[in-house]
Amino acid sequence: MEEQLIQEVIELALLNVKEGKGGPFAAMIVKDGKVIVRATNTVTSSNDPTAHAEVNAIREACRILNTFQLSDCELYTSCEPCPMCFGAIYWARLKKVYFAARQEDAAQAGFDDSFIYQQLHLPHLQRNIPFIRLNHPKYRKPFELWNLTLEKVKY
Amino acid sequence: MEEQLIQEVIELALLNVKEGKGGPFAAMIVKDGKVIVRATNTVTSSNDPTAHAEVNAIREACRILNTFQLSDCELYTSCEPCPMCFGAIYWARLKKVYFAARQEDAAQAGFDDSFIYQQLHLPHLQRNIPFIRLNHPKYRKPFELWNLTLEKVKY
Repeated sequence: MEEQLIQEVIELALLNVKEGKGGPFAAMIVKDGKVIVRATNTVTSSNDPTAHAEVNAIREACRILNTFQLSDCELYTSCEPCPMCFGAIYWARLKKVYFAARQEDAAQAGFDDSFIYQQLHLPHLQRNIPFIRLNHPKYRKPFELWNLTLEKVKY
Repeated sequence: MEEQLIQEVIELALLNVKEGKGGPFAAMIVKDGKVIVRATNTVTSSNDPTAHAEVNAIREACRILNTFQLSDCELYTSCEPCPMCFGAIYWARLKKVYFAARQEDAAQAGFDDSFIYQQLHLPHLQRNIPFIRLNHPKYRKPFELWNLTLEKVKY
C-alpha cells in the first residue's frame, strides 16, 4: 500500500509541473488507509511562499476534519520536507511521514531546502537574513498573560 | 523607530490573548518604514496549525503586494520564530527580522519551538514523528520534468 501511495504522490507532483501550478512537489494526507487530501505546491500560482504541498495538505485536512491536530493521519510527500514543512508537520502532530526524493535531490533541482537547514544553525546576526533581538522591557508580558488566562485553547 | 515597532507588536500579542484568538504571538510586516500588515497567531480560532503570526503576516503581505517574495520588507515579531516560520521567512526572502522574546521564553510558556529544533537534528527514524524514505524508481521524475520545462515560474 505505501508503495502505491508514494507512486500516486509522485505522479501528482509530475502533473503539477505539467499544469504549471508551481514547483515539482505534491503531498497527500491519509487517514485510516484512505487518502483524504491531495495537494501540490502552489507558491507561484497563488502568490504564497508558504503554499508548499505539505502546508497546503495540512491546512486542507484541518479544514475538512475541523481540527488543528492530525494525530491520526499520515503524510505522503514526493520530497523530504523543508524546514517550514517540517515545523508544520510537528505542529499538526502527524503520526508518520513517508517521502520519496531527498533533500539533496531538491537541492540539485535548484530548491533551497538544504541552504535553509544550514542557516538554522548560524548565529542570529551571521544569517543571510539577519535576526535582530530587540530587548524591550515588556517582552514577557504576552506569555505572562497567557499563563494567567484560565479559559484558553492550548495547542 | 525599531523600539516603537517592537512595542506595538508586543501589545498586539497581548491583545490576541485577551481576545482569545490564539497563542500569545503577533507579527508585523514593514515596508519603507510603514507597517503594511499586522497579524496574530490564529491556530485555534481558525483550526489551522500553520496559522502562526509570522506565516499569517507573510501570506497577507504577499496577497496585498501581489507577489511571492518580500525582499524589500522587514518582519517584526513578538517572539523568535519557530522552524516553520523560520522556513517561511527564508522562502519569502524577507530583508531582516526583529524579534522580542527568545525561544527559551516560548518554551517556558509551554510552546514546543525548542523541541522541534531538537527534532530537526535527529536521524529520520529516531524522531518522535518517524520520517520513512520510500525509494520509488520514479522519485526523480518530477525534478527531471521541472528542469526540462522552459516556461516555468522559478522561486
